[in-house]
Parts: sequence; C-alpha cells; structure tokens
Amino acid sequence: MDDHTTKQQIMLATYRALSKHGYAGLTMQNIADETDKSKSLLHYHYDTKQDLVTAFLDWLYRQLETELETVDGGTPRQELEELVDLLLLTDAEFRERAPFSQGEYDEFQRVLLQLKAQAAHDPAYRDSIRKFDDLLHGAVTDIVRRGVDSGDFRDVDPDDAATLLLAAVDGVLNREATLGGDEVERGRSAVKQYLVDVVLCGGPKH
Amino acid sequence: MDDHTTKQQIMLATYRALSKHGYAGLTMQNIADETDKSKSLLHYHYDTKQDLVTAFLDWLYRQLETELETVDGGTPRQELEELVDLLLLTDAEFRERAPFSQGEYDEFQRVLLQLKAQAAHDPAYRDSIRKFDDLLHGAVTDIVRRGVDSGDFRDVDPDDAATLLLAAVDGVLNREATLGGDEVERGRSAVKQYLVDVVLCGGPKH
Repeated sequence: MDDHTTKQQIMLATYRALSKHGYAGLTMQNIADETDKSKSLLHYHYDTKQDLVTAFLDWLYRQLETELETVDGGTPRQELEELVDLLLLTDAEFRERAPFSQGEYDEFQRVLLQLKAQAAHDPAYRDSIRKFDDLLHGAVTDIVRRGVDSGDFRDVDPDDAATLLLAAVDGVLNREATLGGDEVERGRSAVKQYLVDVVLCGGPKH
Repeated sequence: MDDHTTKQQIMLATYRALSKHGYAGLTMQNIADETDKSKSLLHYHYDTKQDLVTAFLDWLYRQLETELETVDGGTPRQELEELVDLLLLTDAEFRERAPFSQGEYDEFQRVLLQLKAQAAHDPAYRDSIRKFDDLLHGAVTDIVRRGVDSGDFRDVDPDDAATLLLAAVDGVLNREATLGGDEVERGRSAVKQYLVDVVLCGGPKH
C-alpha cells in the first residue's frame, strides 16, 4: 500500500475518531482504532495530535477545493445556489460522493465548532481555519462579481455580499450543531431568499 | 450582604473566570478567586460547576432581556439597527453600562463558542442556549413584522428575515472569536447593508 493511500486512510480515520470522541477526547490510539494500522505507524507520520489534526484540516481544505471545482451551474445565480447547497451539505450528489454517513457528518459539525473554539487559542489551527475562510470568501466574491458584471445580479459590493452570505451559512451550521433540529432546512431557505432578494435583485438597480 | 448581591458577585466572578480560563479550565476555585468569597460558599449556592454555569447562562439571559428593553429607536429600521449594534457589542452606551472591559468581552466571545460546542453534548446548556435563541428570534421577528405592517419594510417573511439576520450576526461573532481581526466591523457593515437592501427594500415590493 503506498503512502498516499495510507495517509488517506489515516485522514478518514481521524474524521471518524473526531466524530465519535470530539476534539477533547481524541487520541492517537482512538484514531488507530479506526484503521488496520498501529498507533506507532501513526506516530511515524505525525509527531503529535496537533500535527495530525493540522494535517487533517489541510486534507479537508483540499477536499473543499476539489468540491468547489465541481460547482458549475451555468448562470451565476445557479452557481451560487449550488455553492450554498454544497456548504450546507444539502447537495444530494455531494452526499453520495462523501466518504461518510449523514450521522457522521452531523456529529462532525459539532467537532468543527470545538475546533473553532480551539483555534481561538491555537495559532496552527487558526491559520488552517483562516485558509478555509479565504478560499470560500474568494469563491463567493468571484461568482457575485461575475453576476454583477454580466447584469444577472444587482450592483452590490461583491465583497460585502460574500461576507454576509458566508456569515449566514456559518451561523446556520453552528446553530444546527448546537441546537440540532431542522434549523439547516429553515436557514437554507432564508439564505436562498437572501440570494433571490438582494443579490439577484427583486427591484431595479439603485 | 444580601443573597441577591452575593449571587450578582458570583455571576460577575464566573464571567471573569470563564474569560481567563475558558470553559475547560473553569473550576469552583478559580471562580472563588475572583471574589472575596470562599469556595465553600460557592458550593453552598451551587452543587456543581455545571449548576453554576447553568445559573450563569440564566443570568446572562436576564441581562439580555433587560438590554432588549432599552432598544427603542423610534422607527422599526432604527430599532433593528440598534438591536444589531447591541448584539455585535458595537453599541457605545451598552459598552459603558457593561460591567466588563472590552478585552474581557472579546475573550468571552471565545468562551461562548466553547459553551456552544459543549451544548451539543449537554442538554442543560442546550436548553439555556435555545432560550437565548428564542428570545432574540422573537424580538427580531416582532420588529420586522411591525415594519412590514407599517409599510416601512418590504413585504418579507418576518420569520425568515429574523433567521437570516441572526444567523449572520452569529456567524460574524463566531468568526471574530475564531480568527480575531476586524471581522466584526466588516461583518456589521454587511449585516446593515442587508437591512437596507432586503428588509428596508431598495426596490419596489414584489
């Protein structure tokens, strides 16, 4: 088995272990338990839990990059809606491709909250999370800018529109992670309403 | 000293101890260290750390209720803007009244993230956080509904508008807590832009 496959397995095992045990409960041992590898093999690749989690965040980042490349909806409006579907994990195709179950994904949202709370005190995680933020902000800003240029969207500030849209998506996901329930469905419809009303302009340009 | 004053002091001490040590590092001892009370007096009032933190969340809830009563900006638009200022702690009057420094408040935002992550696994905290959510959602929905009825606002769904607005505020605060920097200022201008464009209607009703 080559190095690439081994790392891929370790990353998926980290995902599962985080979903089961949370960040505070994560150990090299319970990651190893999710693979057919030994704990010492994990240590061969990653010195500490922090190194492994940082590598895991980088891996998630590359997953997101790859997923973003599949967003290609035709019009800027369709593209933005696809992107929101992708981020809120309400995209059926993505769910089919994803290497984890819906239950694991729901639990993982809670883990992401823990990692963000951790990032407030940990520069390594903070840098990783800032990279996600920059990637998404760039992608949304780009779509909005193209829509404004083509006249599909109203003359909004693409940067501000992206900030608000991503803040709303983040708020919806965090609320779901904290409270559970059907917040995602409701939040998604409100976010899409925003797209229709503001970005896509219910009224004339002003 | 009466019971009310003692409890008030314990709550402020809990605020400070949480800001300094985070949720994971919080102990009855480091709360006591923020007062002139003994740890055994704290135990007299609260059996466990969880009991104390639950009481603390209830206390924060009542603070928020009181603050919400001061929001009274004249027009629905002004009221909504005041509410956003209050939630993003960009309200100068509130900051003057608040019994904590800006530094303590910034640190406390990180604690709130930790408490939300904790809430995902702890029904007592979850109920407390849901109460905040319901209080704010009700307040925003009410302002938007009045604005729609009076014709100040466009004919939006007050419930959806409130969901999106609060999700965006939450996303902005979480991002600030995670990444630091000037996200709040930028997020606030984007949220207000939303108010102006969507709720307050840049275009005709549709």
